[in-house]
Amino acid sequence: MKKYVAESVGTFWLVLGGCGSAVLAAAFPEVGIGLLGVSLAFGLTVMTMAYAIGHISGCHLNPAVSIGLWAGRRFPSNQLLPYIVAQVVGAVAAGIVLYLIASGKSGFAASAGFAANGYGSHSPGGYSLFAALITEVVMTMMFLLVILGSTDKRAPQGMAPIAIGLCLTLIHLISIPVTNTSVNPARSTGVALFAGGWAIGQLWLFWLAPIVGAFLGAKIYDYIGAEEA
Amino acid sequence: MKKYVAESVGTFWLVLGGCGSAVLAAAFPEVGIGLLGVSLAFGLTVMTMAYAIGHISGCHLNPAVSIGLWAGRRFPSNQLLPYIVAQVVGAVAAGIVLYLIASGKSGFAASAGFAANGYGSHSPGGYSLFAALITEVVMTMMFLLVILGSTDKRAPQGMAPIAIGLCLTLIHLISIPVTNTSVNPARSTGVALFAGGWAIGQLWLFWLAPIVGAFLGAKIYDYIGAEEA
Amino acid sequence: MKKYVAESVGTFWLVLGGCGSAVLAAAFPEVGIGLLGVSLAFGLTVMTMAYAIGHISGCHLNPAVSIGLWAGRRFPSNQLLPYIVAQVVGAVAAGIVLYLIASGKSGFAASAGFAANGYGSHSPGGYSLFAALITEVVMTMMFLLVILGSTDKRAPQGMAPIAIGLCLTLIHLISIPVTNTSVNPARSTGVALFAGGWAIGQLWLFWLAPIVGAFLGAKIYDYIGAEEA
Amino acid sequence: MKKYVAESVGTFWLVLGGCGSAVLAAAFPEVGIGLLGVSLAFGLTVMTMAYAIGHISGCHLNPAVSIGLWAGRRFPSNQLLPYIVAQVVGAVAAGIVLYLIASGKSGFAASAGFAANGYGSHSPGGYSLFAALITEVVMTMMFLLVILGSTDKRAPQGMAPIAIGLCLTLIHLISIPVTNTSVNPARSTGVALFAGGWAIGQLWLFWLAPIVGAFLGAKIYDYIGAEEA
Repeated sequence: MKKYVAESVGTFWLVLGGCGSAVLAAAFPEVGIGLLGVSLAFGLTVMTMAYAIGHISGCHLNPAVSIGLWAGRRFPSNQLLPYIVAQVVGAVAAGIVLYLIASGKSGFAASAGFAANGYGSHSPGGYSLFAALITEVVMTMMFLLVILGSTDKRAPQGMAPIAIGLCLTLIHLISIPVTNTSVNPARSTGVALFAGGWAIGQLWLFWLAPIVGAFLGAKIYDYIGAEEA
Repeated sequence: MKKYVAESVGTFWLVLGGCGSAVLAAAFPEVGIGLLGVSLAFGLTVMTMAYAIGHISGCHLNPAVSIGLWAGRRFPSNQLLPYIVAQVVGAVAAGIVLYLIASGKSGFAASAGFAANGYGSHSPGGYSLFAALITEVVMTMMFLLVILGSTDKRAPQGMAPIAIGLCLTLIHLISIPVTNTSVNPARSTGVALFAGGWAIGQLWLFWLAPIVGAFLGAKIYDYIGAEEA
Repeated sequence: MKKYVAESVGTFWLVLGGCGSAVLAAAFPEVGIGLLGVSLAFGLTVMTMAYAIGHISGCHLNPAVSIGLWAGRRFPSNQLLPYIVAQVVGAVAAGIVLYLIASGKSGFAASAGFAANGYGSHSPGGYSLFAALITEVVMTMMFLLVILGSTDKRAPQGMAPIAIGLCLTLIHLISIPVTNTSVNPARSTGVALFAGGWAIGQLWLFWLAPIVGAFLGAKIYDYIGAEEA
Repeated sequence: MKKYVAESVGTFWLVLGGCGSAVLAAAFPEVGIGLLGVSLAFGLTVMTMAYAIGHISGCHLNPAVSIGLWAGRRFPSNQLLPYIVAQVVGAVAAGIVLYLIASGKSGFAASAGFAANGYGSHSPGGYSLFAALITEVVMTMMFLLVILGSTDKRAPQGMAPIAIGLCLTLIHLISIPVTNTSVNPARSTGVALFAGGWAIGQLWLFWLAPIVGAFLGAKIYDYIGAEEA
C-alpha cells in the first residue's frame, strides 16, 4: 500500500509542478519562465521524486512507464493496474489543487487550456494529428530507452534520476509546440478533466501513443541492452 | 557553535543569492534572467551550501526545514531554537548586504519590493490570500518530502544536495507568481524588514504556512517511508 | 552489432533532440526556448544517452569523437568505420523523423534552415569562413579534452556523462551564432540533406574542422594527462 | 610542468566559454541566451574542466582560488606564482582567440565592452565603486567557502565539480549587473587587454577584491570546517 501512496504523491508532484509552472508562470509578463522553464519543471518533478521515493515504489509516475517496464520484464504484471490507478488518482488530485490556486487570480479560466495536451487546432503550434502521433510515440520510446538503460545494472549507480528527469526536460524542450507534450497518460488525464470538452475528446491519443512508444522502447532496449551470452 | 555559524552563513547565501538575483538581475533590460534565473539561483544557493556545509550542520537554512526534520525525528529538540535564530540572523545579514549593493545604483528603492513575499495586492500575479496559503503549505510539504526521502539511508548517497537544491528551483518555477515564493520564514523575514510596512504585515503567513506544510510533509514521509517490519 | 545499433539510436536522439528543439521550439512566439534551450537540449541528448547506452557502445554519437578517441588510443581502428557509418545512418533517420513532424505544421519549409550548419552568409550571425573554422576546430578540441579527461581512470567515476553532456551545452552557448554549432559531422550531415543546396555545399567544413579539432584535443590530453612514470 | 599547462588550458576554456558566450550569444536578436545563458556558460567551463583536469592540477583556473586554497593550507606556497602565471597566460590566449572569432563579423568592436569587468559608468547596471567592491569581495568569499567545503574529506566524493561550477553560475546570476562579475583576476585581465583604456584602468579592483574575498572565505572555513578535536 505504501508503494501506491508513493506513486500517487509522486504523480501529484509531476502534474502540479509541470502543469502548474505552465499555467502560473510560463507567460508571466516580462519575466515569465517560458517553455524552457516549463521543460525544466517537468524534469525536476521526476528527478526530485526519484531521489525521494525511488527506493519505495521505483517512482514511475506514469502509466506508460509502468507498462514499458513491465514489457521489459522489470515490473510484475499484478502491480500494473494498481500503479496506474494510483498515478491517475494523484494526477487528478494535482488538477484540483492547481485549479484552486490558479482560480485565486481574477480572470482565470481553465477552458483557456490548463496545460492540457492537444493536436490539430489544439496543438500549441498548430501541428497535425499525424505529427502529434509520431511525436508522442517517438518521445515515449526514447524515454523508455533512457529509463531502461540508465537503470541497467551496468550503468553508473545512483545517477538514473538525473538521466531520467533531464530526459523528460529534453522531451519537453522538443515537443511542447507539437502536443504540449504528454508522454504520460496520467498527466494528460489530470488536467483534461478541468480544461473540458476538446481536451477530453483528444485524450485517447495521449493514452494510445505513449503506450505504443513505451512498448517500442522496451523492445529496442531488449535487443541492444541484452548482455552477451 | 560551529554548526550555528554554518547555518547563519548558509542562510546568508540563500537570501543573498536568491533575493539578490531577483533584485539585481531578474528584470535587467533585454537580457535579464527572469523568473527562471531567479528560480535557478535559489536552488543553487541550497545545492552549493549543502555540499559545502552539509557535513557540518546538515545545511537546513530554513526554520521550516529544521521543524520538519524535528517532526520527522531526524533533528533533536534542543537544537531547534538556536538553529532558527542562526538562520534568521543570517537572513537579516544578507538583507543588509543586499541593501548596500542595490542602493549603489541611483533610483533604487527597497520599498518597490526587495523580493519580499506577499499575497493579495502584493502577490506578484495578484493571487488571493487563500491561493497563497494553499501554495505555501503544499510547496513546503513537498519540499520536506523530498528532503526526508533523498536523505533516507536507502536513497543514493551524496545526491541529496542535487535533489533538494533543484526541488527549491522547481518550487520557485511554480510559485513565484503567487507569493514570490517563500517556503522559508527566515528568507521572508530577511527582506521584509527592508521592504517595509506591508511586507512585515503579511509576514505571519510566511511563518505559518511553511511550518504547517513542513509538518504535513514529515507525516506523509513517516507513512510512505517507514521500512517494512 | 548491438554496439552499432546503439550508436545509431543514440545519434538519432542527438539530432532529433538538438535540431528538433531548434526547428520546433527555439523561436516559438513569446515563450520560445531560444538558443539557451537549444544548447541545453543538445547537451541533454548526450547526457541521457551516455547513461543509457554508455555501457553498451561507449556512446560516441559523433564521428569526430570516435576519431579523437582512436587518436587518443582509447578506441580500436577496426571499429572506426562501422561506428561512423552507424552514426550517420542514425543522424539521417532523425532528419527524416524531424521532417515528418515539422511538416505537420502549415507553412513549414526545410529550406529555411532546418538547423543546418553554415558560415558566411549562412552563419546565423553572419560570421566569416575563417571565424567558423577557428570556432569549430577549437570547440571540438576542447570537447575531446573534456571527454578524454572525464573518462580518465583517475577522474570521479560515473560523472563523465554529466561533464560531457554539459560540455556540449556549453559549446552551443558559445557558438550557435557563429556556425549554428556542429562539432559533429554526423549531426551536420543529417540535416543538411533536408536543408538542401547551400548546406550540402558547406558540409565539408563541418567534417574537416571537427576532425582536426578532435586530433588536437587528443594530442593535448596525451601530454597533460600522461601519468608520471 | 603538466600541471601548469593544464591550468593554462583550463583558464583558456573559462575565459573563452564565459566571455565568449557573453560577446557572441548573449544579445543575439530574438533568441539570445541573456545573462542566464552567460551565467550557465561560466559555471560549465569550471564544471567540465574540473572533471577533465581536476586529477592533474586541481583545476583552480583563477588566481584568487589558488591564493584562497593556499590561505586555507590546501596548496603549497612554491606553486602559487607559477599557477597564477599559467592562469593569466591561458586567459590572454582566450582573449586572442575570442577576438579572432568575434572580429569575423562585420561591425564588431572590442571597445564596446568585450565582456570586461567594470564599475561606476562601466558597470553594466551603473553600480558604484563601493557596490562593486562589496559584491566582488562577498562573492569571492562565498566561492572559496563552497570550494573548501565541497572538497573537504567529509563531503560527498566526486561531486565538488558540480558544486563549484554551479556556484560560479550562481555568482553570475546575482552579480553580472553590478560588475559583469569577475571573482577571477585572470578572467578580468584576459579581456581587459582587448577592451582597452577604461578596462585596464579599472583592473586593480578585480585583482584586489577577489583576493581579499578569497582570504576571508578561507578564514571562515578555517573556523566552521575545523574538525572537533
